[in-house]
Formats: sequence, C-alpha cells, structure tokens
Amino acid sequence: MRHFLSTADWSKSDLQGLLDRAQAFKSGEVSRSLEGKSIALLFFNPSLRTRSSFDIGAHQLGGHAIVLDAKGATWPLEFSDGAIMDGTAEEHVREAARVLSSYVDLIAIRCFPDFKDWKSEREDPMITAFAEHATVPVINMETIVHPCQELALMLALQNHLGDVKGKDFLLTWVPHPKPLNTAVANSALLIASKFGMNVRMLVPDEIYRLDDRYMSAAQSFVEAEGASLTVTTDVEAAYSGVDAVYAKSWGAIPFYGQWEGEAEYRAKGADFMITPEKMALTNQAVVSHCLPMRRNVKIADAVVDSPAFLGIEEAGNRLHVQKAVMETLASQDGSQ
Amino acid sequence: MRHFLSTADWSKSDLQGLLDRAQAFKSGEVSRSLEGKSIALLFFNPSLRTRSSFDIGAHQLGGHAIVLDAKGATWPLEFSDGAIMDGTAEEHVREAARVLSSYVDLIAIRCFPDFKDWKSEREDPMITAFAEHATVPVINMETIVHPCQELALMLALQNHLGDVKGKDFLLTWVPHPKPLNTAVANSALLIASKFGMNVRMLVPDEIYRLDDRYMSAAQSFVEAEGASLTVTTDVEAAYSGVDAVYAKSWGAIPFYGQWEGEAEYRAKGADFMITPEKMALTNQAVVSHCLPMRRNVKIADAVVDSPAFLGIEEAGNRLHVQKAVMETLASQDGSQ
Amino acid sequence: MRHFLSTADWSKSDLQGLLDRAQAFKSGEVSRSLEGKSIALLFFNPSLRTRSSFDIGAHQLGGHAIVLDAKGATWPLEFSDGAIMDGTAEEHVREAARVLSSYVDLIAIRCFPDFKDWKSEREDPMITAFAEHATVPVINMETIVHPCQELALMLALQNHLGDVKGKDFLLTWVPHPKPLNTAVANSALLIASKFGMNVRMLVPDEIYRLDDRYMSAAQSFVEAEGASLTVTTDVEAAYSGVDAVYAKSWGAIPFYGQWEGEAEYRAKGADFMITPEKMALTNQAVVSHCLPMRRNVKIADAVVDSPAFLGIEEAGNRLHVQKAVMETLASQDGSQ
Repeated sequence: MRHFLSTADWSKSDLQGLLDRAQAFKSGEVSRSLEGKSIALLFFNPSLRTRSSFDIGAHQLGGHAIVLDAKGATWPLEFSDGAIMDGTAEEHVREAARVLSSYVDLIAIRCFPDFKDWKSEREDPMITAFAEHATVPVINMETIVHPCQELALMLALQNHLGDVKGKDFLLTWVPHPKPLNTAVANSALLIASKFGMNVRMLVPDEIYRLDDRYMSAAQSFVEAEGASLTVTTDVEAAYSGVDAVYAKSWGAIPFYGQWEGEAEYRAKGADFMITPEKMALTNQAVVSHCLPMRRNVKIADAVVDSPAFLGIEEAGNRLHVQKAVMETLASQDGSQ
Repeated sequence: MRHFLSTADWSKSDLQGLLDRAQAFKSGEVSRSLEGKSIALLFFNPSLRTRSSFDIGAHQLGGHAIVLDAKGATWPLEFSDGAIMDGTAEEHVREAARVLSSYVDLIAIRCFPDFKDWKSEREDPMITAFAEHATVPVINMETIVHPCQELALMLALQNHLGDVKGKDFLLTWVPHPKPLNTAVANSALLIASKFGMNVRMLVPDEIYRLDDRYMSAAQSFVEAEGASLTVTTDVEAAYSGVDAVYAKSWGAIPFYGQWEGEAEYRAKGADFMITPEKMALTNQAVVSHCLPMRRNVKIADAVVDSPAFLGIEEAGNRLHVQKAVMETLASQDGSQ
Repeated sequence: MRHFLSTADWSKSDLQGLLDRAQAFKSGEVSRSLEGKSIALLFFNPSLRTRSSFDIGAHQLGGHAIVLDAKGATWPLEFSDGAIMDGTAEEHVREAARVLSSYVDLIAIRCFPDFKDWKSEREDPMITAFAEHATVPVINMETIVHPCQELALMLALQNHLGDVKGKDFLLTWVPHPKPLNTAVANSALLIASKFGMNVRMLVPDEIYRLDDRYMSAAQSFVEAEGASLTVTTDVEAAYSGVDAVYAKSWGAIPFYGQWEGEAEYRAKGADFMITPEKMALTNQAVVSHCLPMRRNVKIADAVVDSPAFLGIEEAGNRLHVQKAVMETLASQDGSQ
C-alpha cells in the first residue's frame, strides 16, 4: 500500500502521471472515482485553503471528506512505542490510526514541527507513525515537506514553460517578520531537482542551507537528470537569466529552537524582496509563491500584479493535483 | 455579476422574487439547482444557526458547502491596497478572494464590526473587498447589515399580514446587558421601509438613531411607497395600533468604541422589554426577534410563548430564503 | 416520538433489534434510509471519533450531517423555564431546539457534566431540555451515559461470546491521573446487566460505587434475567473465571466538585492496571476499553496487543450501531 508522504519516495514518471491526471481534471475531466469512499482530513495546524481544496476535491470525485481539528490540548497523541502514558497524551497513534482506518478510505494529515528540536522533528514523527499504523493510505497535507504544493507548483511551471528539464529555477529566500517552517522550501528544492531543472538557491547566508537530507536528495536528483544545484548569496548572479523564480522565507536550521541569535543573519536578506528590478535580470521568468503571501514584504505589488505571477494559478492547481493524489491512492490494490 | 450584500442594492420586485421562490421551497418545492456546485461559508464570527441553514440549504439544492472559520489570529487578512504587509496579516484579500473563487461557485461571509471605530467599520471593508476581488458572487451572512434575516422576517410578515404595504411596523429598541451590533436594526429598518410599511422606531433616546446611511435610505424607500418613517421615545404612542413589532437591542453610534458613557442613555430604556401590557396597545400585532434572544430581558415569556410570536418561524425561514438567494446568484450568467 | 437518550429506556429486545441491524451494516448491507435527511451533531465537548463515525455513517445512509461546536462561551444556553436571561446565556433551549428541529431530521448531542455539582448534573439537564423541546428525535453522543458506546461494546461481545446471558462480566476501575466522567462506567453497567450478564464491579474502595440510579437499574435488570451484580475490592476474586473484562477509570461521586480529598482513595487502586497476570486468572476473557485509552496506565501493552483486546473492534462498531440508531429513529412515525 502506497502513501503520499514525500515526493522523494515517488519516481519522476509516477509524479508525472499524477500531474497528467491533474491536468485532465483542470481541463474539465469528470470522475466519480471516490464514490462511496471517505477521507479524513486531520489538522494539527489550522488551514483554510488546504481544507477547502481537499474537501471540494473529494466531493467532486463523489467522495466525502470529514475535517478533524486535532489542535493542541484537544487530542494529544502519543507516538512512542512502549510509552507509559501518564502524561498529557490520552491516546496512542496505534489506536487512533487503526480506528480512523476503519471509518475512512484515506487519511490526510497536516502536522507542522514545533520549532523546538529539529533533531527529533526532522523525523516527522506524527505522520510517520500514522503511516505505520494506518491500514489505509496516508497523504501529507504539510509537515516538514509539502508535496501537494510541489505538484501544484510543477503543474503551473509545465503549463508556462513546457518541459522544465534544463530550465533555470531560482529558489530565493525572502524576508518575513518571523522564522518559518522550511517545508515549502524543502519541497520546492525536491520537485525542481526531481524534474531536472538547474536549481539555484539564493540565501542571506550559508546557514540558511536546508537540512542535508533535502540538499543531498536534490543533488542526486539533478545529477540523475544532468542538471545542477548551486547555493549563492549573490543576488544579481542568482537572478541572472533564470526561467522561474520561487519565493519562500524560512528559519535557519542551526538556530532552531533558539531563534534570538538568527536575527543578525536574517538582516543580511533584508533587501531580498522580489522587485521589478530583480525580475528584469531574469529570462522573462515566471514567479510564484505558495499562499499566504505578504505583499510588499516578500514580493512587491508590481510583480504580484504582473502576468508573470503564477501564485493564484498554483493555489488553484491544488484542487486538481489533490484529486489526482486521492484517486490514485484510493484505487490501488489493497487499499480499502 | 450580482452579489447579495445589502437589500438596499436590490429592487423591491427582485426581493419579492426571492421571497416568492423562498415560499415555494417552504411549500415543498424541490430543486437541484446547485448540483455540482459549491459554496464557501467564511465565518469571521461564530455561528450555529447561519452555518446550519446555509449548509443544509446548499445540500438540499444538490450543492456542497464548506465551512471556514477565519477567526481572529488564525487568518488575519489585509484589505488595503498597497499595504506593506509586515504586521499581523499574512494574506491579502486580493489573493484569498481569487483563490477561493477558483474552488467554489459562491462565497458567503460573516464579518461583524469590531465595535472600535464606526467611521471605518461603517464602510464594511472586509466583505466589500471580497466582493471586489472575488470572481464568484458573494453573499452577506451578517456584517453591518443582515439581509438574509431581512428576507426571513419579511416572509414571516407576508405569511401573517398578507401585503404589508401601508401596515404599521414598530422597530423597538429593547434592553440587553451590552451594546450590540446595529446590523439587524439597520436591516429591519431597510426591509420594512422598502416594502412600504409605515415604520416607527422606538428608542430610549435620540442618540439611538441608526447611521444616517440607513435612516436616509429608509426615508427614500417610504417616500417611494407613500409610507412614513418616524422616530419616537414615547412607548405608548409607538405601540398604539401597530400591526407588527420587531425587537432589537443595539449600541448608540455616538458612543461607538467608548461605550462607558452610553450607560446613562441605555438606562432610559430599562422598561422597554416587550410585555403583554405593551402588546395590548397594538392592533393584535405579530411580534418577532432574530435569534438568539434573551427571554424576560428583551421579551417576556408570556409574549414569546403566545401565538403572536413569529421568531421561530422567522428563524426557520432562513433556510428557505437562503436557498432562494443561493439559487438566484449561482444561476446568473457570468457566474462560474 | 422516541429519543435515544439512555438504553435504560429501551427494552432488551428493541436494543437487540438495533444490534442486529448494526451487524447487518457491519456485514456490508447498504441502505439509503437517510436520503434527503439531515442530522445536527451538537458538541458541547470536543470529539474526533464520535463526529467522524456519525458524519460518515449519516453519509453512508444517504443523509447529511452538520457538525456544530457549542463550546463554552460561544453559545451559552439557558435551560431553566422562566429564567430572566440577564446573565451569560444568550438563548434558551426552547428556541434553539425548535429552530434546529426545523432545519434537520435528527439532533445528536454531546454534553459532559461540569464536574462541579453532581446533584444537578445527574439530571442531565441540557439533553433533557433538548429532548423536551425538540420536535425531532434526539440522540445521546455522551452525557452522563454513553449509550452508543454501549451498543458498540455489546456488538463486540456478542461477536466473540455469542449469547452473553449468564456470562461473567467484570467492570474494573483502572488508574488515570485525573478523576473522569462516570458516563462509560454507568453505561457498561447498564448494558451488561440489561443483557443478563453476571456483573462484577471491581473498585479501589466502596466510594467508587456508581450513582444509585445506575446501581439500582442494573440490579433490577440482572434480577429480571436471573443474573447477579456484585461489587468488590478484591482483585483476584474479581478476575477469577470471568469471560469479559471492561476497563474504565472514573471519579468517586462523593468527592464530586472537591476532588482533592479523593486522592487517598484513588491510591488504593494504584495497581489496578490490567496486566497479563490478571488476565491469566480469567476464563480466557476478552478485554476492552472505550477509546481514548492510556497504554501502560490503564492496560499493559501486552494485553492491548493481544488477540483478546476488542477495543479497536468496539470503536469500529460505533459506525455500525450509530447507523442503526439513526435509521431507526428517523423512520419512526411522527418524526419529520
């Protein structure tokens, strides 16, 4: 039984299969492939866009979504084997995952890291435990990666650039008042490299390199495709001649859990906002960002409101790619 | 593309069309006019009755509703153009409205004023911005007016009084421990005047006059219908011979945001609760109130539990009128 | 019109009818008996499993569930007749129940006691008021009893033990950091005695006897069936030769609302966790617990992970028994 936890576990051709199916949905294809089936959307963190697009996508496929808020104190779950559960956790994932599996055909989970201890959080323990104990396929709605967003981005890129192999992709760190989850940055890196783009990462300082798991995976992906991966702090060089720009802000892993010290490094990226001047250095690049997005902090209005901006299309693609993921996982042999 | 933001933007005959359709639904008419369509119910303030009746209404029409809680810190939205978004807002309405429009066919919004600055809040900025940027029709589920409640009230009045033109309608301020939103009071004023009733407003003091936008609109509506609008502080005169009594408590606009000073004026209405004695002055009037309603503070039990009380019927009408609104907006040319 | 508030109000044969219908659903029977009908799931306390299973169950029957969170300050309801509502309650159950009844065909309610004043809370005032004023059937999703859990338990027992009449059933108090609601304990007592099992209650001290309403009802049920009810503090005697063990932790009623004093009595049950050693004293008993369940506090891993553990099956049965309850109540003459 196959889960959709990270695109790193899926081959390029299987991912392209999901994208082709998503494009068919986007073009008006109707399917009732979830008829009589249900999906549980389990949110440990709030969401409006993700819950909307999964709920409506399931409904359009003839299925039924239930939204479960598993926030904070409401439903603390234990995921360690053998734990003596005399703390705050009232339930073990072993039970939660099995029972939920007996009610529904798919389980989708959003569970952000706590931003306290990257060493344990980088193991993505909650969704990993669910995937181990659930008897139905599990879908990642954003943990330390965000694979549905990746597909939405790639679908938008393919629509505008055609085959992206060999095209130049810039992942640029952009300013934000707070250090944020690296999930979307990890994901942009994975999907661009998986599809053979020449990936440039623009960061305020080398400490903003992403976790080595993702850097290494991306390196092996670009090598397999004959492409390249570079990390730079040089704004002009980074933008020069690229075909696509993707913006994201994130916190530097070495300061994880003790963010005070990060401020001086963050300050080095104070002018990293995407502006028309920077875009003029590109090869008439398209530009995107997952939503939500702070205007005039991450990207200037003049760029957001230009035809080059794909953020609305990318967000709209979420509906189509998630339908492809749900349909594909629910139809595999051995799923309920 | 037409929205349903305020009945002030709709002609009497178009509103009567909605009421006629609602009456058909109330009489058992079945329609699948939302088949394959979705509506997002976006709540910046909590609701049980409104979310229930919209959700069930959409389902009865063959459609699908998704409920989105956009409360407080969860999803602060910016609505000013050109804003540098370095404060608490993570997203601009420009993006939120367009993306949501790509998922659903209708967007319904509840967003109460903050009770801090009437000068800006009287512009109803959130729903106005959504209506400007959404590419699907927007429905008002209560902001500074409550047009769905208006239709529910008018449907109840027409069921009991027949043609209401020329009938006498009393909108009476009633006691409540706190100053409340003027939305339902504004709305009762608009709908009664639009349908040509002679409207009397009973207030504890002239400072409880509603915003001039609504007073002026109501004045023009009654003039167009050959009816009248009067404001009084005289309880006996107000009740004398009226055909319908509508109760609502609200805060006085001049004290908006600094409510302490309002208490002495509020005290003048301490005996404004609707009682059997007051009702005896009327022309065997019907009486109603939107729900929730504090018994024995706003209206005495003996009145609530009498056949004259239409509050339950009015609340039940919400289901039918909202089906009429959803169907009408979703079926217009140019909506998705 | 019949409600489902407590199994104490239902005959053994009517309950068996619900169980037979649930077994049919479990075996794959398809029904569209809620086609065109809706159920409101009203939660005064949080839930994931109950809301999932009711929502999916209604959907599988062709119906539509709406989930309403009526927590805390959001929607304080008055249930006393004649109250002058100048406190926190904005609405009376008389209105809430009647309006909700005009939107939906069934109302299900979860409302736990506040753990403050058992004398009033033992009257189950909120659901009782809803059942009095609603014009559609009301279902108990856990208040001071949990009848849906009872049916799920009994279905699991019958699947494993066949006819349970005359079989020995142990309800054992187990440790937990906090005093908990007695609902599931009351319910296990009611259903085991109603079906003629010889019921043993194992408690750390006599003060853990359940409310006399349930003790007396259980006594009359076992007498009617020729079975027995005993209360003991002797662990070995309690486990000896039983066919089924059911675990639950609860607070001692005499300390209700002033829980400090309970700790010394609670300490007497410190070694009441269900272990393989205790299970070895039984007649190869099955063992269960409603979920959530703290592993290695209430039941040792070795027992939970053995084939004797029915907790996952019992939780899965919730879906089937609730479909039987919804279908039965919605199809009675006189319901809407």
